Amino acid sequence: MASAVNKSVLSDVAAEVKKYHFPLEDVPRLSCNDPVVEQMIRNEEPVILTDTNLVAAGMQWSPQYLAENIGNGLYTVYSSKTQKFLYYDDKKVARVPDFSPPTVHEDMTFQNFLCKVNKRKEGDRWMYLQQSLNDTVGPPIVRDFTTFNWAWISEQQQKNKWGALTSNLLLVGMDGVITPVHYDEQQNFFAQICGFKRFILFDPSMFGCLYPYPVYHPHDRQSQVDFDNPDFVRFPRAKELRGRQAILGPGDVLYLPVYWWHQVESVPGRGMTVSVNFWYKSAPTEKIVYPLKPQQKVAMMRNIEKMITDALNSTEEVAPLMQAMVLGRYT
Amino acid sequence: MASAVNKSVLSDVAAEVKKYHFPLEDVPRLSCNDPVVEQMIRNEEPVILTDTNLVAAGMQWSPQYLAENIGNGLYTVYSSKTQKFLYYDDKKVARVPDFSPPTVHEDMTFQNFLCKVNKRKEGDRWMYLQQSLNDTVGPPIVRDFTTFNWAWISEQQQKNKWGALTSNLLLVGMDGVITPVHYDEQQNFFAQICGFKRFILFDPSMFGCLYPYPVYHPHDRQSQVDFDNPDFVRFPRAKELRGRQAILGPGDVLYLPVYWWHQVESVPGRGMTVSVNFWYKSAPTEKIVYPLKPQQKVAMMRNIEKMITDALNSTEEVAPLMQAMVLGRYT
Ligand SMILES: [Zn+2]
Ligand SMILES: [Zn+2]
Repeated sequence: MASAVNKSVLSDVAAEVKKYHFPLEDVPRLSCNDPVVEQMIRNEEPVILTDTNLVAAGMQWSPQYLAENIGNGLYTVYSSKTQKFLYYDDKKVARVPDFSPPTVHEDMTFQNFLCKVNKRKEGDRWMYLQQSLNDTVGPPIVRDFTTFNWAWISEQQQKNKWGALTSNLLLVGMDGVITPVHYDEQQNFFAQICGFKRFILFDPSMFGCLYPYPVYHPHDRQSQVDFDNPDFVRFPRAKELRGRQAILGPGDVLYLPVYWWHQVESVPGRGMTVSVNFWYKSAPTEKIVYPLKPQQKVAMMRNIEKMITDALNSTEEVAPLMQAMVLGRYT
Repeated sequence: MASAVNKSVLSDVAAEVKKYHFPLEDVPRLSCNDPVVEQMIRNEEPVILTDTNLVAAGMQWSPQYLAENIGNGLYTVYSSKTQKFLYYDDKKVARVPDFSPPTVHEDMTFQNFLCKVNKRKEGDRWMYLQQSLNDTVGPPIVRDFTTFNWAWISEQQQKNKWGALTSNLLLVGMDGVITPVHYDEQQNFFAQICGFKRFILFDPSMFGCLYPYPVYHPHDRQSQVDFDNPDFVRFPRAKELRGRQAILGPGDVLYLPVYWWHQVESVPGRGMTVSVNFWYKSAPTEKIVYPLKPQQKVAMMRNIEKMITDALNSTEEVAPLMQAMVLGRYT
């Protein structure tokens, strides 16, 4: 059994983290046996679960343990000049002529990654390993993986009529790395193994305050708002942001609902982080009920943006058409 | 044979008409036998045709002649406090709770209409008869109608692969009435019979400068820009307008292409106007060529607006969604 994270450590961590311009409410921390948990997951509300034992056998996955047991497969390692690792979609890079990727990624062995992290001096690039677990991992890791609490998580999947588990992303980050605010299109159970991660969350209705890049853009799903330096002239509604915060320590699992916005920070001064997420396809939409939910509106806006981009057969013509359709007419 | 309109009268009329804030170029006046005409119609460019004899037998359709020969059927007569008759769609009125119709319409006999027009004193409401010709018209009118130059117009229809003739609108307007700027979704041959009408035209690419009402709104297809008092704060791109002008006298026929914007003014001081239009469905879209034509983009924006309004099942939610989708993202 994984021991629950010490509450006083969590409040120390909460006191250390950066403050931004918006208020944050705490995400509830509950036992997975608490009856309200079922309801929260059904309602797509984030919740921290303290005792799922989801990755119990993986709790020994320190960077060192992984280096010794994960094998010689190649892992995708992102590097960045800053602590921030703004995601971009390689497949969309060609559509935006003047796009310059904010990070680069290369494939290397886990051992090579850890060696680079350990040798890193100030001013060197930051590094973040992000790779789906696959069949190249060594036998001890396979063994740990098979003892994950699949019974519990499959029960959640079935209760909520989710689709298939699509991947388990392994994240190994240097102390202080940040994944800027974005949303994903899948349901996620995010299991923290080593170190502390702080999630800043916003519900899907905050779409209008977070100004995601166009869908055709490599930064699709990522907010244009930089919390360290918000541009309230371009993004005035960013002032209306109201968020939630979840601080995860080893053994904690966050239910991160589909379309919820999240920024994820490896808490500075608390060492490297190791996490594994469990991405599931959402339930198929049941019969439509009005008014639509914010999530459904986001899905709809994504479809419209894709349709328009496809129909025009040109990314350059999308903005003028969108503007003509909306400015002075729906504003 | 209808005699062509005297050119010096046309230049007198052109000198009399109101000036607006945008420049106007003259629409060419050509014989329908001029070889460029065929090309202009194919390219959906407006052109005035002087010798179609389209409504030759109808050239005697003065208001008085109509009153004596049109029969006792009921005609839709719009009335307005001002000279302007901003169109609205009765079927869309219920969707906009605080909508107040700018005109009212009632059904009356042609004789009753003409009597009211003749008795009208300053300060009384303005009146404009607009009614599709139908089988209630009297035998002399039917006879005139059957002698219209159907051979010529059907040739145009076939050459350009247009669909069916959908209606012939009879328009009988008081001196000075104005139909504010809007576009229609059909091809139109507009035949002038009595008096002078001035068309102000804008090509479909001017959509972004004319700010049509939302598609769900009763004023769908009508511009929000008032040429007599343009609001350049709400509608800044109205400053970019560049138009064309067509002054039609008796016997002239304007080819008014689908999706072209038009404001139509019965030239003040030149008496009542009588006109008949011939609306045809557009050709089905052939294979798609990029970049899309402005007309195709307008059709696309209409479809998107309809889809969104339907999907949300609420007109009130359309503007917030459109804003969230576009502002700070495509602006
Ligand atoms: Zn994410
Ligand atoms: Zn019209």
